[in-house]
Amino acid sequence: MTEPAFDPRDPVALAQALIRCPSVTPAEGGALALLDTVLRGAGFESHLVTFTDPRSPDVVNLYARTGPQERPALLFAGHTDVVPPGDAGRWTQAPFSGAVLDGELWGRGAVDMKGGVAASVAAALRHLERHPGSAIAFLITGDEEGPAVNGTVKLLDWAKQRGERFGHCLLGEPTNPAALGDAVKIGRRGSLSGVITVHGVQGHVAYPHLARNPVGGMVRLIDALLAEPLDQGTAHFDASNLEVVSVDVGNPAFNVIPAEARATFNIRFNDIWNRERLEAWVRARLEAAAGSEVRHSLAFERTHSEAFLTPPGPFVDEVAAAIEAETGRRPALSTSGGTSDARFIKDHCPVVEFGLVGKTMHQVDERTSIADLEALTRIYERVLARMAA
Amino acid sequence: MTEPAFDPRDPVALAQALIRCPSVTPAEGGALALLDTVLRGAGFESHLVTFTDPRSPDVVNLYARTGPQERPALLFAGHTDVVPPGDAGRWTQAPFSGAVLDGELWGRGAVDMKGGVAASVAAALRHLERHPGSAIAFLITGDEEGPAVNGTVKLLDWAKQRGERFGHCLLGEPTNPAALGDAVKIGRRGSLSGVITVHGVQGHVAYPHLARNPVGGMVRLIDALLAEPLDQGTAHFDASNLEVVSVDVGNPAFNVIPAEARATFNIRFNDIWNRERLEAWVRARLEAAAGSEVRHSLAFERTHSEAFLTPPGPFVDEVAAAIEAETGRRPALSTSGGTSDARFIKDHCPVVEFGLVGKTMHQVDERTSIADLEALTRIYERVLARMAA
Repeated sequence: MTEPAFDPRDPVALAQALIRCPSVTPAEGGALALLDTVLRGAGFESHLVTFTDPRSPDVVNLYARTGPQERPALLFAGHTDVVPPGDAGRWTQAPFSGAVLDGELWGRGAVDMKGGVAASVAAALRHLERHPGSAIAFLITGDEEGPAVNGTVKLLDWAKQRGERFGHCLLGEPTNPAALGDAVKIGRRGSLSGVITVHGVQGHVAYPHLARNPVGGMVRLIDALLAEPLDQGTAHFDASNLEVVSVDVGNPAFNVIPAEARATFNIRFNDIWNRERLEAWVRARLEAAAGSEVRHSLAFERTHSEAFLTPPGPFVDEVAAAIEAETGRRPALSTSGGTSDARFIKDHCPVVEFGLVGKTMHQVDERTSIADLEALTRIYERVLARMAA
Repeated sequence: MTEPAFDPRDPVALAQALIRCPSVTPAEGGALALLDTVLRGAGFESHLVTFTDPRSPDVVNLYARTGPQERPALLFAGHTDVVPPGDAGRWTQAPFSGAVLDGELWGRGAVDMKGGVAASVAAALRHLERHPGSAIAFLITGDEEGPAVNGTVKLLDWAKQRGERFGHCLLGEPTNPAALGDAVKIGRRGSLSGVITVHGVQGHVAYPHLARNPVGGMVRLIDALLAEPLDQGTAHFDASNLEVVSVDVGNPAFNVIPAEARATFNIRFNDIWNRERLEAWVRARLEAAAGSEVRHSLAFERTHSEAFLTPPGPFVDEVAAAIEAETGRRPALSTSGGTSDARFIKDHCPVVEFGLVGKTMHQVDERTSIADLEALTRIYERVLARMAA
């Protein structure tokens, strides 16, 4: 690939070039190839690695590293894949245009998270000019918005097997609800899902004594799950929360008592819990409410994630200080929101998340302030200066 | 049509001939044409009347009458349409064979209710031989198992406009749970159905404070409806009963809080209630449980029926005495079970229901004891002797 026609130390130009790559998961769209060229140009040893799995499409990922192998690198993690733009006609600017307008850069991925990736690459390039030999790595996946089967987990294993070691990780997901500097994420809640089925006996509504309606039993079980909160929260986490996300019987006939009712739930839980304890809690709650009357079964989804925390300390302090120096605001140390690939990275090194303002992520007219993009680049530069020099 | 090749005073032969007519609603299948021939042959003035409605298929019905016009007739009501046989391969005898085997007559409609219709026609023919000039009428619909739009309701209006008057009605639906003589039905519970929708606000499970999950509200509303029985029953009726027959959200995603939950319910109610009072009760229950927190809406189905009772008295006594004389058993005076066309007839004259044993109705291998069929014919004859002579 030839040199890009822009200066990759300019995060706006780099983010714009990335937005123009239509990299809806699992498509690579040219985004990782572009980063590969840019990073090689700056002296990184860069690899495009494709992972395959029978359950999932093939996905291309990028791993790049510079600096002495024996020194643990400061790792920038991220993804270039994006969610679909939906109906492109509803966008004010075409979703893959990368239009710059009134101080904003428009397009799918502008904040989630091609902007964050561009800021980290631009920051690393600037830093290396002043501090050549710094140990810096990039772990950029193309499978974050999709099934996440052929992405960060496998790439971390791949890097580990090559002997790569990381001191700390900065993940550039959009962590700020309203303004740059609002919040860094120092952990994430865990997530566990399950399915409850109540088994009744089908019959005619006119003969209820010959049937057993599962709906009453299901109401009793859901009541028991919602009766009181799992906890009151911890030092760094909100209270754990259970949501019953669907209840389904699917009986179209008013004169039929149905045989079965099904409910699905999801729990977002803090560091008091882990999967095992939580499953036991749910099981006990249901059994106590069911007694001998409500015949039911319970199955947990295999896909889950544990809660984790990067405890406040030197690394978190450095990131927070860099943010405050640049924005004048002391960021909240947050663990709220959904899951991210940080749940995988935390098994390899301490990880902190900080990126752009998430307001428009996954929406029509996704866009970022150009001032934010430049400030974020300077924040990353400050962290590099303290942690990777 | 030519004379039938059997003696229509024999209820087994007549029922067999009717079963051989494949009259799955709305098909006439030859059943009403056969009855028309038989009744004309016995001196009835008989009419095949077709009703039409844009919402429903055309349906043929039969009305026949004998005896002096000025005298209110004893009315036999019934239907020759049947529910589908389902997979014919699962039947021991072909569903429209009318096979006679080991003292039983087999086939779809044997008990519900070609057997009952045959017994009433055979009884009337025998009675008229001894008591010519008795006022007897038949109101046989082809739309009882279907939408019931082009059936009994319209045929009753049609007869009324022609000046027909009825003293009493015997409806030959299968009323006996286990043995002939178990029960006559002297009324039926009413039926009312409705749909509850709880309106929430959709969102991501990781941000529950930005959403409002409708499932919790729905559980609260259903709890309120099931909390205590509507009543304790009355002299002739069981307690009214509410069944929530479906709850549906239809949300396939574990990470989404749904926008809406929907529940459907049916109430079978006794003579304490009518539609208006019951709707008010449901509305008040839901509003009390919802308070200002659960935004919900409630819609009742247009199709409903009121509870009714033919109070014990001379007519019920005559029917019960005839049953006891023939079977040696005093029938229970029941109002249990589903609805029937008696709910329409009760607006024209007192109606009592008595027919065969319902055990196999609507099932594979529907069949009736031949002894029962003959005993039922004699029971109808006894009633005719007392009420129509």
